[in-house]
Amino acid sequence: MAAWSERLAGVRGVLLDISGVLFDGGEDGVIPIPGSVEALARLKRSQLKVRFCTNESQVSRKDLVVLLRRKGFDISEGEVTAPAPATCLVLKERGLRPHLLIHDGIRSEFDHIDTSNPNCVVIADAGESFSYRNVNKAFQVLMELENPVLISLGKGRYYKQTSGLMLDVGAYMKALEYACGIEAQVVGKPAPEFFQSALWEMGVEAHEAIMIGDDIVGDVGGAQQCGMRALQVRTGKFRPSDEHHPEVKADGYVDDLAEAVDLLLQHAHQ
Amino acid sequence: MAAWSERLAGVRGVLLDISGVLFDGGEDGVIPIPGSVEALARLKRSQLKVRFCTNESQVSRKDLVVLLRRKGFDISEGEVTAPAPATCLVLKERGLRPHLLIHDGIRSEFDHIDTSNPNCVVIADAGESFSYRNVNKAFQVLMELENPVLISLGKGRYYKQTSGLMLDVGAYMKALEYACGIEAQVVGKPAPEFFQSALWEMGVEAHEAIMIGDDIVGDVGGAQQCGMRALQVRTGKFRPSDEHHPEVKADGYVDDLAEAVDLLLQHAHQ
Repeated sequence: MAAWSERLAGVRGVLLDISGVLFDGGEDGVIPIPGSVEALARLKRSQLKVRFCTNESQVSRKDLVVLLRRKGFDISEGEVTAPAPATCLVLKERGLRPHLLIHDGIRSEFDHIDTSNPNCVVIADAGESFSYRNVNKAFQVLMELENPVLISLGKGRYYKQTSGLMLDVGAYMKALEYACGIEAQVVGKPAPEFFQSALWEMGVEAHEAIMIGDDIVGDVGGAQQCGMRALQVRTGKFRPSDEHHPEVKADGYVDDLAEAVDLLLQHAHQ
Repeated sequence: MAAWSERLAGVRGVLLDISGVLFDGGEDGVIPIPGSVEALARLKRSQLKVRFCTNESQVSRKDLVVLLRRKGFDISEGEVTAPAPATCLVLKERGLRPHLLIHDGIRSEFDHIDTSNPNCVVIADAGESFSYRNVNKAFQVLMELENPVLISLGKGRYYKQTSGLMLDVGAYMKALEYACGIEAQVVGKPAPEFFQSALWEMGVEAHEAIMIGDDIVGDVGGAQQCGMRALQVRTGKFRPSDEHHPEVKADGYVDDLAEAVDLLLQHAHQ
């Protein structure tokens, strides 16, 4: 691999994944990854632009920011690109009235959306709410539509909690796709439109931006397909086999956010 | 289409799907499809050989036969090819110890199988037992295996109950395949080995046999791929669009089992 100075030259903006990069989730809430609070603070004091780009879809953007601030992270709601608000825009634009297969923690994001007489299904990381009854109800709604529309908030395979790996929305999206013979529309990483909206809001072009995430496909692969660079952290859902992924190669692998920030502050923007 | 006499000429053996052909399932149990009890009786009085080939994986073969006999169907356990007994053979042959993601109604089929320290996952139509917790546990078992093996009892998309369409095992098989990045091994229709074992037990060669089912892909397509003929009944999970399926064309479409038997008794074995 080329030297870090070469790989990070010209970076002006940093997109940060949240879960698995800033913190690990667990039954007892949010547990900061060691060094990440300080690393974020250093990054935000630098000349680099910073924005957060998450597929979090169990809690609202507002509640997520409250949780993180309580742990000392320097983050505000306006700095976060998340799939639920992006989905609401899509629903309004297209006159769609969703049946919601979501976690109660994110229901408030859809407060102003008409959900009567649904003509599509929106699926998010519903966690325990992915009961057979709930998933089957979404399936039945889709099968009754002449043109079934399924919108998925991300398509992650799994994420990591302190108690172990947890199935993410992508698995249930695939179940509904197969059962109904349809293809879902993904709002969230790795959809290019989602990264592009985050870049636009940060005011940085793709070739000047770098993504830092724990998901080799959703974060690293997705960002690279948009023309960005991307680092994978060895925290969160990272698995050693990711460094030999058959299709995606990160621009660098770092132990954690702290190492990524060290390298960026040393080599970027030159 | 050719005349029925041509399409059915030389048929000596009949494989019957059970759910959606003999009965519709509901919350209140088994509801015979009108005319099917009598049609089966007539078929069994004829010179044609008859065997049942089902993907039923919510109840044991024994309990299924008891339910059906109670409704007047002429059926015995030895006449039924079903995925659970076939799976037990596979597990024993390969020294596999399964983690079971199944319905309690079929657990007795696995009574003699070692399930300690699992080195594979077996998934069946678990119905309400497809809770997030249970599906996630199966996922975690697979992710901890060096060579994850997933065996699925069929890969049906959905089946029909009197209350509506219900997600079948195939949807959850796809969820686990995607989350783990693996491919399941299917025991049941449409796996060719499964049809072949049913033919072997009936003592009839594929070109002399016909399948009657309500599933255009699992029953009709699967049987045809084995060199059998196949009729689709317009009962059970049949949907009008099946008659224009892009990939599978049945050798005939009939209203129900009664019509299929009328035609077979008139035209087969000539």
